[in-house]
Amino acid sequence: MQSLKSVPKSGLHNPMKNPERYLMLGDVSFRAAEEMRKPDVLAHFAKLIQRTSPKSWAQAEAEVRVTRLFLENFSGDQVRFLARSFSVSGDHTGQTSIGNRWPFGPVVHIAPFNFPLEIPALQTMGALYMGNKPLVHTANKVSIVFEEFLRMLHACGLPKMDVDFVHGQGSTVGEILAQAQPRSIQFTGSEKVAEMLAKQHHGKVFLEDAGFDWKILGPDVKDKEYVAWQCDQDAYACSGQKCSAQSMLFMHENWAKAGMEKVLAARAATRKLSDLTVGPVLTWTTEAMLSHAEELLKIPGARVAWGGKPLEGTHSIPKQYGAIQPTAIFVPLSEMLKTPHNFDLVTKEIFGPFQVITEYNDHDLPHVLEACERMHHHLTAAVVSNDIQFLGRVLGNTVNGTTYCGIRARTTGAPQNHWFGPAGDPRGAGIGTPEAIRLVWSCHREIIQDYGPVPHEAKLVQS
Amino acid sequence: MQSLKSVPKSGLHNPMKNPERYLMLGDVSFRAAEEMRKPDVLAHFAKLIQRTSPKSWAQAEAEVRVTRLFLENFSGDQVRFLARSFSVSGDHTGQTSIGNRWPFGPVVHIAPFNFPLEIPALQTMGALYMGNKPLVHTANKVSIVFEEFLRMLHACGLPKMDVDFVHGQGSTVGEILAQAQPRSIQFTGSEKVAEMLAKQHHGKVFLEDAGFDWKILGPDVKDKEYVAWQCDQDAYACSGQKCSAQSMLFMHENWAKAGMEKVLAARAATRKLSDLTVGPVLTWTTEAMLSHAEELLKIPGARVAWGGKPLEGTHSIPKQYGAIQPTAIFVPLSEMLKTPHNFDLVTKEIFGPFQVITEYNDHDLPHVLEACERMHHHLTAAVVSNDIQFLGRVLGNTVNGTTYCGIRARTTGAPQNHWFGPAGDPRGAGIGTPEAIRLVWSCHREIIQDYGPVPHEAKLVQS
Amino acid sequence: MQSLKSVPKSGLHNPMKNPERYLMLGDVSFRAAEEMRKPDVLAHFAKLIQRTSPKSWAQAEAEVRVTRLFLENFSGDQVRFLARSFSVSGDHTGQTSIGNRWPFGPVVHIAPFNFPLEIPALQTMGALYMGNKPLVHTANKVSIVFEEFLRMLHACGLPKMDVDFVHGQGSTVGEILAQAQPRSIQFTGSEKVAEMLAKQHHGKVFLEDAGFDWKILGPDVKDKEYVAWQCDQDAYACSGQKCSAQSMLFMHENWAKAGMEKVLAARAATRKLSDLTVGPVLTWTTEAMLSHAEELLKIPGARVAWGGKPLEGTHSIPKQYGAIQPTAIFVPLSEMLKTPHNFDLVTKEIFGPFQVITEYNDHDLPHVLEACERMHHHLTAAVVSNDIQFLGRVLGNTVNGTTYCGIRARTTGAPQNHWFGPAGDPRGAGIGTPEAIRLVWSCHREIIQDYGPVPHEAKLVQS
Amino acid sequence: MQSLKSVPKSGLHNPMKNPERYLMLGDVSFRAAEEMRKPDVLAHFAKLIQRTSPKSWAQAEAEVRVTRLFLENFSGDQVRFLARSFSVSGDHTGQTSIGNRWPFGPVVHIAPFNFPLEIPALQTMGALYMGNKPLVHTANKVSIVFEEFLRMLHACGLPKMDVDFVHGQGSTVGEILAQAQPRSIQFTGSEKVAEMLAKQHHGKVFLEDAGFDWKILGPDVKDKEYVAWQCDQDAYACSGQKCSAQSMLFMHENWAKAGMEKVLAARAATRKLSDLTVGPVLTWTTEAMLSHAEELLKIPGARVAWGGKPLEGTHSIPKQYGAIQPTAIFVPLSEMLKTPHNFDLVTKEIFGPFQVITEYNDHDLPHVLEACERMHHHLTAAVVSNDIQFLGRVLGNTVNGTTYCGIRARTTGAPQNHWFGPAGDPRGAGIGTPEAIRLVWSCHREIIQDYGPVPHEAKLVQS
Repeated sequence: MQSLKSVPKSGLHNPMKNPERYLMLGDVSFRAAEEMRKPDVLAHFAKLIQRTSPKSWAQAEAEVRVTRLFLENFSGDQVRFLARSFSVSGDHTGQTSIGNRWPFGPVVHIAPFNFPLEIPALQTMGALYMGNKPLVHTANKVSIVFEEFLRMLHACGLPKMDVDFVHGQGSTVGEILAQAQPRSIQFTGSEKVAEMLAKQHHGKVFLEDAGFDWKILGPDVKDKEYVAWQCDQDAYACSGQKCSAQSMLFMHENWAKAGMEKVLAARAATRKLSDLTVGPVLTWTTEAMLSHAEELLKIPGARVAWGGKPLEGTHSIPKQYGAIQPTAIFVPLSEMLKTPHNFDLVTKEIFGPFQVITEYNDHDLPHVLEACERMHHHLTAAVVSNDIQFLGRVLGNTVNGTTYCGIRARTTGAPQNHWFGPAGDPRGAGIGTPEAIRLVWSCHREIIQDYGPVPHEAKLVQS
Repeated sequence: MQSLKSVPKSGLHNPMKNPERYLMLGDVSFRAAEEMRKPDVLAHFAKLIQRTSPKSWAQAEAEVRVTRLFLENFSGDQVRFLARSFSVSGDHTGQTSIGNRWPFGPVVHIAPFNFPLEIPALQTMGALYMGNKPLVHTANKVSIVFEEFLRMLHACGLPKMDVDFVHGQGSTVGEILAQAQPRSIQFTGSEKVAEMLAKQHHGKVFLEDAGFDWKILGPDVKDKEYVAWQCDQDAYACSGQKCSAQSMLFMHENWAKAGMEKVLAARAATRKLSDLTVGPVLTWTTEAMLSHAEELLKIPGARVAWGGKPLEGTHSIPKQYGAIQPTAIFVPLSEMLKTPHNFDLVTKEIFGPFQVITEYNDHDLPHVLEACERMHHHLTAAVVSNDIQFLGRVLGNTVNGTTYCGIRARTTGAPQNHWFGPAGDPRGAGIGTPEAIRLVWSCHREIIQDYGPVPHEAKLVQS
Repeated sequence: MQSLKSVPKSGLHNPMKNPERYLMLGDVSFRAAEEMRKPDVLAHFAKLIQRTSPKSWAQAEAEVRVTRLFLENFSGDQVRFLARSFSVSGDHTGQTSIGNRWPFGPVVHIAPFNFPLEIPALQTMGALYMGNKPLVHTANKVSIVFEEFLRMLHACGLPKMDVDFVHGQGSTVGEILAQAQPRSIQFTGSEKVAEMLAKQHHGKVFLEDAGFDWKILGPDVKDKEYVAWQCDQDAYACSGQKCSAQSMLFMHENWAKAGMEKVLAARAATRKLSDLTVGPVLTWTTEAMLSHAEELLKIPGARVAWGGKPLEGTHSIPKQYGAIQPTAIFVPLSEMLKTPHNFDLVTKEIFGPFQVITEYNDHDLPHVLEACERMHHHLTAAVVSNDIQFLGRVLGNTVNGTTYCGIRARTTGAPQNHWFGPAGDPRGAGIGTPEAIRLVWSCHREIIQDYGPVPHEAKLVQS
Repeated sequence: MQSLKSVPKSGLHNPMKNPERYLMLGDVSFRAAEEMRKPDVLAHFAKLIQRTSPKSWAQAEAEVRVTRLFLENFSGDQVRFLARSFSVSGDHTGQTSIGNRWPFGPVVHIAPFNFPLEIPALQTMGALYMGNKPLVHTANKVSIVFEEFLRMLHACGLPKMDVDFVHGQGSTVGEILAQAQPRSIQFTGSEKVAEMLAKQHHGKVFLEDAGFDWKILGPDVKDKEYVAWQCDQDAYACSGQKCSAQSMLFMHENWAKAGMEKVLAARAATRKLSDLTVGPVLTWTTEAMLSHAEELLKIPGARVAWGGKPLEGTHSIPKQYGAIQPTAIFVPLSEMLKTPHNFDLVTKEIFGPFQVITEYNDHDLPHVLEACERMHHHLTAAVVSNDIQFLGRVLGNTVNGTTYCGIRARTTGAPQNHWFGPAGDPRGAGIGTPEAIRLVWSCHREIIQDYGPVPHEAKLVQS
């Protein structure tokens, strides 16, 4: 608290203060990336992630790689390039206006459990790059991962005073925030906490919360095996515990006729606990997920497409976690839209290996778009089609922040090289790219130089 | 309400929907600017402003001119240029990521009384340019000005369905907002309402509220008459009823020794009611302002520098308004900082012709900076000096959103060509420039094209 | 000559000199656009164009409209926005590097006959905006059009000293150039003169010269009538006297089978002299064009697809001009590529209503791309297809500067809102857009501020 | 030659072809930087540089460091970020224009002897980043340095086919160029060769040639020791063999009165051959330099300020090289400007430890500016002053491409983080920064997507 309060609003550095720090941070980023290229460091972080978070090895490694590439992106002079300003001539000799990116000073970043390295690493570095001093909190079950990362940064030259890190319950953090009144809070996590923070702090927040993410398979059927593989990844990798996981699949009837459902079911059936391609669900119990399925099945025409049962075989996943088969419930499009009750039910986000699927035809497209419009959170989406006019129609009428289109479209697996974040909300945060960092971790400050000469005295009249 | 609810989140247009509207809005902007170049149209608007808002003719005309120049800036193709996207190559053939600016859809703009044309005109056009449908409310005593502007836009080709305009009390608007739940609200006005809206709408707001604006006269004394004239304008034009008005003046002892206070007092003494160079204060009574002065005078060392009395002579300003002489109270710097009570007192914003002045020397600069740091709202500021190292030190340690520096530095009179808005607050709004419009009236949407070809089937493994 | 020599290299204005001129030019642009919106002014310019250049009314009006929209784009503050700089923090306190756009000072623009208003208007204004003083020459038969435009600018407030305009033969201009040694020359016109100037002035030129422009109809046949209409426009509007005119058409066999040739021939047959939809050719005689056709017909498999004859009926086109029917010669793709002689023949640009057409199938695509690669000038091109992977393949392997793709792709009719110019040549000029103006009419100047403080004396060692 | 000819104009990659290569080059850059951080690799390159080029250890090390930092700047995704495009909405649904950066394909880079690592490394990587295949030639006496660098790149993953490297005489390269006709040539070296290449290749060149670089000491005298140290570095480090070396020094009389000349002379006197702080001159003999001094001394009022003699003591510098003391000749400003002969004489660039110095007062400033205007090559410059209005006047009236201002202003030592290159010449090249790479190694290509729907047939009329 003391530490947060001692940071000036003008930050640890800004374009007119301590520019050496831009270079120091570029150097730390390079050194940290260099470390993470070492096979044993990579393995160390991937194992830590697996120990705290139910992921396959491939998923854990990918998280480390994305973090490393992000660090490479801000090597050398790239931190100061990130903070570049622009200037425009003024009205008379000696006048110029300059648009700068300015830090907030004392800030807070709160990270969830599901990407214990990538999310806090990228957001914390972004906060630092722009001149802030962040207090970081990550979900307490996984906080060892970021602690290790922070220790590595110290070894790579980051001054120890630059980042404060707090372990412990969210409630502790809440109290710190209430008293320290940081200038800005970046929160990644559940919708409920997000809205609470937004209210308490009168909106001094950037949020990346729930996403009810959909995928539309367009009229042009091709590359069926690939599309099925990608659907399966999007719905079930990390046991569906990504805010970008595919929660609803709209299949054009052409895909249905081509037997897509069967192919998807076959893919899902290959997932198994032994290699963590399916695993424990941390925030929903088995019972809760299956009773949600039952509620869905009460909708006329609804049916289990595949899954819908607890994980088979003996396993040691504790009761307070969930353990179900990769599951899809088919619900007819017309029924979804019929009542608000139904719509709320089908668009409820289950943070597990669970999705709703449906079918549409050419005439139904407006209803598909209506469904997308009525949803509440707009994080990722996918439009699987190479039909350029179809894409134009869907993209022009939707707002998801990170939207993939084309035959290879996916909803998950966002890398460090493009923007990831929700759209349609003024509080929406982005992560990782230059644009995201500039938006979330800095604000505009205009400095107008007006050095004269001054006009002749006789011209000065009162107004 | 119905109208707001009927707007899709993807707006009236966006980079992939109805691009013709970008051109239509460029054309409307040109035509409206063309109208406002006509002397009688200019005079009509300037008179309307003067009838509703206590301004001199020069100040009223300037408001019309800034509005016109803003419209000229978005003529022709400039609206679509404003909405430009960028794209970056992806990881493999057929993949490209595109960063777009996307509208929020149904939005609200609420404008105050003091710039009845400029503020709602610039913000409303900005909202439209980016594809939103705005509901506009301006302070009800002055709303006729924007109504006339809107009628002119209709005559210039703006479809009547594009903007909703609501007269009436703020409370009515509050109810509409509560029920219609717009996607974003841009509010310009008092801090109290701003924070209330921010809380009620969980931060889905962009705010341009109170500013306690300071000016520092640096160690290098030159162009004394000019600097005095500018100080007088900043403190007393529009009777101090600008959110950018100079509320505190820090004079280096070199200026004090050079007799600056006397020059300032002489300037202030030339203001008179007859030409509205001083006039009624709409939100503070005479009594309220003078008793605030009395409170200040209890601080040890405080004294009236000039003014401090009701406006002399007979006049017809009603009791519920304020009418005082241009006033300055001198308070010693050390006393200001001594107690939170004193500091709160000297930094209370009086929306009238009233300022606090003080003096400092070379050794005091850290205390001046401490005072700037402890203030709460960071809208405009001025550092009057051509001493480049002095400027660097002050600018690097402060955060005001629109900061003028150099011997001609001012706090008021921001034009349409540079950013105007607070800094240091994630909810901070800007007005008028391309950057301001893109920030306030649109959000980032990333579309990733991924058209294939797809990888060979054998490469598809579960993860 | 004297006038050119008297201009300093730092121009009439730059970001640190006479910034008022940016505003003046924004104002002149607005006023000029305002004038050109008047129906009689529009008609005056369109008629002038028609009197000097063989165009239909629609083509002449379009030229005036594009010029007006360009002027609208640079109204208000947009000229100074165009000249914006960027700055980046340096290595230590007080150091900042600033990237500016700087003028060349004395410059020359030479314009051809075929767009007597648009080309010199856009390039001259661009030169002025960035701070240069241009000497302008347009083809002497059409120079009255620009003279009228310049007079209008003067009436709109442009100082008379800002632009020098020289009528007369190209040779006169050549002499002026040789003696005055301008800092940069922008030439739009024939390849021959372009290369001569480039050599004489050691490459201090920006060129927009010949274009041998092709169009490829992809495998997906749709909207046949529209595509045919567009092909006809591209090949024959303005009697083919545009540097962007379609000179070669590659038809996928699917289009051939769908009867495209017949549809195209029918379209061409509707053109007539009476409304100038076909008209005199200024730089090629009838005989020269027809003997070129004969040469082509010697290639095995070549045939007249349509046209190939002098214009029928009595007309008053003088002998030194050309007058032929809209013509297309079919040449087999394999024969084109067989010998350098053939290839040179088919890719010779005829500045008249004349094109070569050919056919290809899926296996031939590499040969089509080879043909595109072997051509010499890369101005415009079109790939008529909505097949996204086909487009990717063609676009990724070609370099034409202004390339249209999609079912509505064209080669002509470039407006003011996107870049127009050749690619693949370091001397290549663009016209009209902010990027084009910044490239052609200004250069980068980096100013590094380094205000101190200075390091301690003891640190200063010799190196 | 064969290799150059086999490269397509669309390059090895571009935004629509082989995007994987952007990532590969980012990775190679990181790995190469990683290598160069190793102390022994750093030492290896620094020693190689010293063996081929007469530099002190500090100067050699700095060259390696700048090269490494440049590589760090283009790690990770930064190569593809460098090639980013922008897009703007079109006139109707389905139309969008995209501004891309496109390679030239087969290109050539020719580098001089004085920065045997930095110049070819930065330019070659820039050429590669944008998709070109470069043929590289460096001055044959130093070409081993770049060969080692290239081998290191190969070890870091660069495909061997990506860069061609030719040792040998310039004449050999000239022949290759004449026959292979590369699309663009970047030449860094002497003015004479530059103009010859420009003429031969009709301006398909980007040049970084001679610079006659000046420094002005403004009216405000402060930090004398520092300024003297910097002057000495700029004139004499690397024995003056930098194209950015200070060739003329304008001292305000205030500096003269403060005894600056004596301080400068004392600094120069500390340079010695033993540590290479002064050393052999490669392109001017001792005799040539001293007879140039004699010519200068014939100007009325001219005198030797310091130096002006051969290097004392025994040394092994061969006769074909030069070896003189750090030298300054004072020439009165009025005499310099009096005749073209004098002016040519004083502004002749001596590529050695040699400068002309002069003095001016407040009234003379226009003459100083005239001198700057009349010079021919505008590479670097320095205005040593913190007087903001003085700076504005000098900067606004000059054009040097890389201009330092402020009390720490210098002419040499440009790093990788800001633009370095001449201004005022359309053929001017920059080096190292994102802007420089985009300008020199790519061109604009506009792709306009126009996917439809198409307008109704009835609307299609001939024009």
